[in-house]
Amino acid sequence: MADDPIAFYFDFISPYAYLAWKKIGGIATVAGRRIAPRPVLFAGLLNHHGQKGPAEIPAKRLYTFKNVIRIAHFSGVPVLPLPSHPFNPLLALRAASSDMPEETRIAFIDRLYDLVWGTASVDGARGVTDPKHVAWAAKQVGLDPDAILAAADSQAMKDRVKTTTDEAIARGAFGVPTMFVGDELFWGTDSLPHLEAHLRGEDPASTDRLADLLSMPVGAVRKPR
Amino acid sequence: MADDPIAFYFDFISPYAYLAWKKIGGIATVAGRRIAPRPVLFAGLLNHHGQKGPAEIPAKRLYTFKNVIRIAHFSGVPVLPLPSHPFNPLLALRAASSDMPEETRIAFIDRLYDLVWGTASVDGARGVTDPKHVAWAAKQVGLDPDAILAAADSQAMKDRVKTTTDEAIARGAFGVPTMFVGDELFWGTDSLPHLEAHLRGEDPASTDRLADLLSMPVGAVRKPR
Repeated sequence: MADDPIAFYFDFISPYAYLAWKKIGGIATVAGRRIAPRPVLFAGLLNHHGQKGPAEIPAKRLYTFKNVIRIAHFSGVPVLPLPSHPFNPLLALRAASSDMPEETRIAFIDRLYDLVWGTASVDGARGVTDPKHVAWAAKQVGLDPDAILAAADSQAMKDRVKTTTDEAIARGAFGVPTMFVGDELFWGTDSLPHLEAHLRGEDPASTDRLADLLSMPVGAVRKPR
Repeated sequence: MADDPIAFYFDFISPYAYLAWKKIGGIATVAGRRIAPRPVLFAGLLNHHGQKGPAEIPAKRLYTFKNVIRIAHFSGVPVLPLPSHPFNPLLALRAASSDMPEETRIAFIDRLYDLVWGTASVDGARGVTDPKHVAWAAKQVGLDPDAILAAADSQAMKDRVKTTTDEAIARGAFGVPTMFVGDELFWGTDSLPHLEAHLRGEDPASTDRLADLLSMPVGAVRKPR
């Protein structure tokens, strides 16, 4: 079981996934686990569940970025406002899904994330929508930039991001970041302490309590609009 | 400014609002503030923003209750699974909106919350959809149960809950619990440490950083479905 990696479903578009990404490696190391990063299209999850993302609700958009700054500050993770958000994450997601050793993939994702939410830039510009950014991150971790960009443009990688997104939905994910320890789902940066407790065998949401929860009937349903 | 109470917009239906309610009193006391409880219909906020509640997405419903158990456990707040959820919260919201001294209102809301998510019950039954539950909570805090039930059934209280819900939306609320310190909005139990930092004058989401955030353009918008 300790060989079972912690699956980390994410999209570069999500600052919450970035904040969790910067913590999950250390958490996994403490628990003697590896990380299995799984790039997904957040918009695919939202579409499936008929939800809007935090940045798609005007009142929520500003709050989300303030909240991210606060979490980043109190958890010691550097975060910078992006020049533009939301952005199209598909190039970066497909590049991050390309064939490569898992340790390289983790380092590659980390560089890409630094370009989006962290302090990295290429020729003074940040973001991951431009191929030059993806090429820079690839070079940083010893990958062939041309091969990665070619792969990111292939039908195979388009399909792979879609397949991974469908896999996340099938496993019960409704947002990013979503992490799995075995079949136990954890969602969001605020779930990281719970994930850590679970890894230590100290998860209070134990099976006997869940029997009660699962049997709780739905008492009122809003009318569809 | 210290006389300015912390506004607490909530709906009994939300276990996250319950968890925050059980903490906000102590937080306010430490800061020398009062609480101004504002009962709103969560479904009204969701309808306005075209969102679904956590319990309305099947994959999210079970996770929400597990997450609530975990937060409750680690923050030392008792929580019990309800016999039925979601439920219709309007009777309790209207009762809690009735005319009464603010200190009484806070105690009344606390008893109602204990019936929903805490350890209180009436004749062995929990919840706040039955008038007998509302009457019990009223009696507990020295209110006339018949007067409260009559008020809860009045057009004036129906209108008041709607007005308070509209007020929350106008102030930028998109969920519950939403708390305001002055005009600064905080959302959710996980924002309580941020609210505390704000009260201490240690909020990292300061105005100069916000100038950057506010100027960040939208780079991609999903197609409407």
